[in-house]
Amino acid sequence: MSLLFKHLRVHQIFGANTDVGKTILTTALVRASAARGIPVHYLKPVSTGHISDADDKHIDYFVGDRKANVDTACLFRFDEPVSPHLAVRMAQGRRSHKMDPPTDDAFVNAVSSHIRECAMHHDSISHMYVETAGGVHSPTLSGTTQVDCYRPLFLPTVLIGDSHLGGISTTISSYESLVLRGYIIDMVLLFHDGYYRNWEYLKPYFADRGIHVLSFDAPHKRLADPDEENALMKAYYAKLVPENHHSAIYDALDHLDQCHARRLAELESMPKRTLDTIWWPFVQHGHVKGTPDVNVIDSASQDFFTVYNGQSSSTLTSPHEPPVSLLEPQFDGSASWWTQALGHARPELTLAAAHAAGRYGHVMFPQATHLPALRLAERLVHEGPGKGWAARAFFSDDGSTGMEVALKMALRVFSTRQGCDVDVKEQKKWGILGLKGSYHGDTIGAMDACEEGVYTCEWHEAKGIWLDPPTVANRKGSFIISLPPAIAELAGAGSDTVRVSSLQEAYAVESRIKSPLAQAYECFIEQTLKNLKENGGPTIAALVLEPLVMGAGGMIFVDPLFQRVLIDVVRRELGLPVIFDEVFAGLYRLGMRSSGPLLGVQPDISVHAKILTGGLVPLAVTLASDSIFRAFMSDKKIDALLHGHSYTAYPLGCEVANKTLDIVEKIAASNDWDQARVKWNASVANQTRESSVWSFWDPEFVDKVARLSIVSEVMALGTVLAIKIRDDAGGYQSHSAQKLLASIKYSEQNNSVSAAPGGSPFGINYRTLGDVAYFMSSLNTPVAVVRSIQDRIWVTLTCT
Amino acid sequence: MSLLFKHLRVHQIFGANTDVGKTILTTALVRASAARGIPVHYLKPVSTGHISDADDKHIDYFVGDRKANVDTACLFRFDEPVSPHLAVRMAQGRRSHKMDPPTDDAFVNAVSSHIRECAMHHDSISHMYVETAGGVHSPTLSGTTQVDCYRPLFLPTVLIGDSHLGGISTTISSYESLVLRGYIIDMVLLFHDGYYRNWEYLKPYFADRGIHVLSFDAPHKRLADPDEENALMKAYYAKLVPENHHSAIYDALDHLDQCHARRLAELESMPKRTLDTIWWPFVQHGHVKGTPDVNVIDSASQDFFTVYNGQSSSTLTSPHEPPVSLLEPQFDGSASWWTQALGHARPELTLAAAHAAGRYGHVMFPQATHLPALRLAERLVHEGPGKGWAARAFFSDDGSTGMEVALKMALRVFSTRQGCDVDVKEQKKWGILGLKGSYHGDTIGAMDACEEGVYTCEWHEAKGIWLDPPTVANRKGSFIISLPPAIAELAGAGSDTVRVSSLQEAYAVESRIKSPLAQAYECFIEQTLKNLKENGGPTIAALVLEPLVMGAGGMIFVDPLFQRVLIDVVRRELGLPVIFDEVFAGLYRLGMRSSGPLLGVQPDISVHAKILTGGLVPLAVTLASDSIFRAFMSDKKIDALLHGHSYTAYPLGCEVANKTLDIVEKIAASNDWDQARVKWNASVANQTRESSVWSFWDPEFVDKVARLSIVSEVMALGTVLAIKIRDDAGGYQSHSAQKLLASIKYSEQNNSVSAAPGGSPFGINYRTLGDVAYFMSSLNTPVAVVRSIQDRIWVTLTCT
Repeated sequence: MSLLFKHLRVHQIFGANTDVGKTILTTALVRASAARGIPVHYLKPVSTGHISDADDKHIDYFVGDRKANVDTACLFRFDEPVSPHLAVRMAQGRRSHKMDPPTDDAFVNAVSSHIRECAMHHDSISHMYVETAGGVHSPTLSGTTQVDCYRPLFLPTVLIGDSHLGGISTTISSYESLVLRGYIIDMVLLFHDGYYRNWEYLKPYFADRGIHVLSFDAPHKRLADPDEENALMKAYYAKLVPENHHSAIYDALDHLDQCHARRLAELESMPKRTLDTIWWPFVQHGHVKGTPDVNVIDSASQDFFTVYNGQSSSTLTSPHEPPVSLLEPQFDGSASWWTQALGHARPELTLAAAHAAGRYGHVMFPQATHLPALRLAERLVHEGPGKGWAARAFFSDDGSTGMEVALKMALRVFSTRQGCDVDVKEQKKWGILGLKGSYHGDTIGAMDACEEGVYTCEWHEAKGIWLDPPTVANRKGSFIISLPPAIAELAGAGSDTVRVSSLQEAYAVESRIKSPLAQAYECFIEQTLKNLKENGGPTIAALVLEPLVMGAGGMIFVDPLFQRVLIDVVRRELGLPVIFDEVFAGLYRLGMRSSGPLLGVQPDISVHAKILTGGLVPLAVTLASDSIFRAFMSDKKIDALLHGHSYTAYPLGCEVANKTLDIVEKIAASNDWDQARVKWNASVANQTRESSVWSFWDPEFVDKVARLSIVSEVMALGTVLAIKIRDDAGGYQSHSAQKLLASIKYSEQNNSVSAAPGGSPFGINYRTLGDVAYFMSSLNTPVAVVRSIQDRIWVTLTCT
Repeated sequence: MSLLFKHLRVHQIFGANTDVGKTILTTALVRASAARGIPVHYLKPVSTGHISDADDKHIDYFVGDRKANVDTACLFRFDEPVSPHLAVRMAQGRRSHKMDPPTDDAFVNAVSSHIRECAMHHDSISHMYVETAGGVHSPTLSGTTQVDCYRPLFLPTVLIGDSHLGGISTTISSYESLVLRGYIIDMVLLFHDGYYRNWEYLKPYFADRGIHVLSFDAPHKRLADPDEENALMKAYYAKLVPENHHSAIYDALDHLDQCHARRLAELESMPKRTLDTIWWPFVQHGHVKGTPDVNVIDSASQDFFTVYNGQSSSTLTSPHEPPVSLLEPQFDGSASWWTQALGHARPELTLAAAHAAGRYGHVMFPQATHLPALRLAERLVHEGPGKGWAARAFFSDDGSTGMEVALKMALRVFSTRQGCDVDVKEQKKWGILGLKGSYHGDTIGAMDACEEGVYTCEWHEAKGIWLDPPTVANRKGSFIISLPPAIAELAGAGSDTVRVSSLQEAYAVESRIKSPLAQAYECFIEQTLKNLKENGGPTIAALVLEPLVMGAGGMIFVDPLFQRVLIDVVRRELGLPVIFDEVFAGLYRLGMRSSGPLLGVQPDISVHAKILTGGLVPLAVTLASDSIFRAFMSDKKIDALLHGHSYTAYPLGCEVANKTLDIVEKIAASNDWDQARVKWNASVANQTRESSVWSFWDPEFVDKVARLSIVSEVMALGTVLAIKIRDDAGGYQSHSAQKLLASIKYSEQNNSVSAAPGGSPFGINYRTLGDVAYFMSSLNTPVAVVRSIQDRIWVTLTCT
């Protein structure tokens, strides 16, 4: 991940094209730094072309008489003057070169490690220039284009513009490709060309965009005679980088120094400024002790944030310790509140967002249509979680609003079924049937579908009844179903737990449906409904469930058999609409597209968000069956579903969702997950994949953690790992999990290469829900990363 | 705007750079179309370089023996082989050329008009190729780069890739610049280069992105002798476009034909598919008669949608009528539910979105910070609507959630002020004080802060009391304050209206504050509060207002004096927190940043959304004063504001908001609006700009419409024009406005050049609220567009 040192200022040099003067202007920068007596590192990670032309040799030769200040390096060198990805293949073809092209990860690790090594040597100002090869999108050794391959390093960028005819276009397009990857672009440098005068156009163009442009006299045309050429080039450099330290190239140095200083100052100022202005969600500001409590996120890539550690003690180096990067990777352990599934800042999603923004902006949706929304609706209804039961898609902005829409749908259906004699006062008190521990979002209507609790506000009115459900977990190495007392009694097992042989058995709903436990569940539910009716409880209008797991309620894994029986009984006895809140659990968070196939029943209404938009932007979709939709059809305008946010079905969100589903479904259809499935003894057959039960986390690890004395129970399903800490005063107000794991947030400074991009040591950003700590992977987190998180969790739990 | 004809297939040709073979491959396409006996139009809007080299001459010369089928044209021609923006200046410098460079609008109109003329001639298949100059971002005559300048035409695109060294990079970057503008890219064509083999890399790269790549043998190196050169080129073209109709260039034709056919088929299928899958917000599907009721939005630019009219009668041309474009502009008359302010699909906003997406994706916000959110919070609090009173910014997803947050804040403050003895049952019934006609969003909590009405659902419980407010409007040519009966009686005026001399007088709150009417207001409010207390009304916890105008309630312009007095009395008598719901009215929708300076009082809490994100993505911010924030501080976690959506403060949304505010504040600080201000006799002095009252709509027009017998009253403020139709059965259920204006939706097919980009005839997409029709401009809508909308409204109102 990104590296930032106080004393070593690092810039990467990208070119708008080949042959735009990248090496010459980089040489000038190196020479200017050296002329000022500053130690300079020049790194050309990949060099192609004859050794005599190689960029580091060029610099060695032309740096002037301050050579002692300059350190040049090249990590991969090829003779052929072609794109690196071809050079590798040509070299292999000739068999003169045995090496396989390095993977992007290995490449990034090599560059990162070189930079860190350079930083070790300096406790006063030094400069580093990392020169890329060709244009911004020229392929690297692996074939990935450079802007993408270098992205995890997130180095501040100098773009060398193109002064030729057409160069305005290539310079601006290259700039935009850098913008699309989020880079910080500090400066554009280019040659003067008296005829095309591109710099004249580009200076105000980039000034409008906050970017400084400097232009330089171009060198002569290359001469055939090497001695003459070298002599002329020496003279050229002597003029470009004069000994009197006054020229545009020194202005460039000053500007880069200022950018570096500003960046350091900005990062340092951010915690205080944040504490002065921001009101955080779900945070007790009274608990915030000061600036070190603010997690400054400078960028993100894959499953890692890059965070500023300038305030943490680990970077306050004594004179004897080597300087540590002020930015370090931090594993995004809660998948940024359960939204991430493909890694942060995926270029495909950025481009999808940009394409829709560029085509539509936002366009209003009532009685209108556009491709991104239509395609998303069609795929969710026909191929996605709505497959086989849904008929319509209704758009809103987040899981909470999606649930409000779902509730409005269900209430109307119930109302319609009551006929004309609905008492308007009575309907305000209609309730839903749900489970204890449910959470459906933060808006007051969604909250009213939950019990009163810590999350609820003054206006909250719990509308409904909530059953205490049996749960599944690994406790001390065995998978068990924990029964609430009332059910335990009915089950007559003489115990409040039922042991199952494996995770697979627990989730084999169809094979458990005739079991005595299923009968006990049925009996319990029937009795509850009967009691409710007899004792004048609220009129129940809908069944509302988070299938399989109740997230915010504390990662409670509900026995799926209980949910199945509940749905069956409610449908049979009351004929009520069933809402699945799949905001958290859906779209492969638990390793399966939706929970219907596993439960063996489908809802009438379902709500989808979070992963839906790949962890980039908010969007929710409420799916409904045709009979739900028809309850709103009439010839009266006011019978319509009069709900609609301004940005309903905004094209950018829909297009990002479409691209996310493309990627997610491709991952799900591949064999990538089969290794994990096999470990969990889950089916890898195509026909049962839809309900296959497995986890990205290792079964041995889960088992091992469950046996720890400080741990009460553990569950893993799909990307989710939940560890419940033994704590007599549990619940949301407990701080036990938070305290126990506190040290995991910090990186362990050691010399081993970590699994984070770039190999730097990393900490883990984690969230707790009272006594439950949870960790979440993406759908494509590398096994090595998962393992290293497991190792770190293990060390933290066992050494505290 | 975009043109699309059934028989004339049009493609624009962009190049990844100069000298990539754009003219050669375009010539080949033209020649291939002609060889198939298809009439071909070749348009080079701008040509630079010597006439003998000019692209149209090249095509004329090399098109083969089917010349009769080919029509070539060039709109602007310059001798100099430089970028068009320079060519114009050089030509002017030589005084050989008198013309001013055309504006982008004029340029787009010229191209559009040429295309429409070409389409006129064909009722069977024909092709058209529009060749741009240089690379995608080469500047056009005005200096705007081509991708941006051509964007309103939104023509399907062929990109000519670059086969040289570095060409992979320039091709991909050019592609990305096209993606950022939302273009449909049908194909990439490039030369074979045996050494660099770019096509080998680019074929799979673009296949992954759904784009077809074809490659072609490159021509020989240009010969010095023109005759030899011509002979060789003839032979080259004969091989590239053989008479047997079998070669890659014919495959390219087939592919472009398929793309065109697919696009037509897709547009035609969209209405039916939409009616099959989409559940629209705020739409009674029972009223939807069929596919013609679906507004298919193909793209958008400036203040216009481009909509498909293939189903409307106006395009069902008889054999004697010329073909009409299947796509036409439609003015976005409701600013897409009040979100637009800068025009659709602004590249600056797209790039801001892309930059944040590329740097962060989304990163979780509790106890974290990132630059886009921090900067947005700081500017809203310190320089924006929070200036002078706010201390904190809390993020959520839309106006409705922003209001739920505001209500939770206010309720807590009230609760805290009650001390320890708050009755938990009692607090559920606390109410707010508001105005009749209020609307604060669709979620149930926000709804509970409004009266029961057509919008409310089964669970709605009106919590509070709502006063009937006096309103401002132009009625029959005079500005009047309409008083509700109770106030009219107290005012003792003997009438329910008070005439004011002008809009300016109505909004001069400070000068009206001592008036008898102000005293009547005060008396009425005090009495109401007293009655409430005496008669055991709900406990009032907060004052909640939409300042100046209640939007969804029917564009009700409340007398600002009444709101001012109400705030003063409530603060004095009850000391309650005051919430401003500025979701609709804020951020210059009404010509001023916020309503506080005009009202002369500031709120304790305010909510901002809609314009905040420039009409691109959803985001809301709730601002709060320090004392509100402190009510949640404690050492208990559960005392925190436990509200937070997954994508809270997502970087993409925050960055788009930052860029929007940059642009909006720049417009507001410029003199662009002064002409309109002067017309309305509003102050143009810097010190009073913050509360200056004026409108983008002409005062004469407003006056004229107000005098129509079918019109009850009219108001215009800032971008908003509201026309209330005379209708005895008014309100939301009324269809009077909808019916009266129905014809305005359709374009008037005539030969005049319209004010829409490209000059095509356009319809107006408008929304009504019962008996009120409203129209909204952006903050930068050209005067010509506003005038043409006014003209159209006038004609529609007076001719029906």
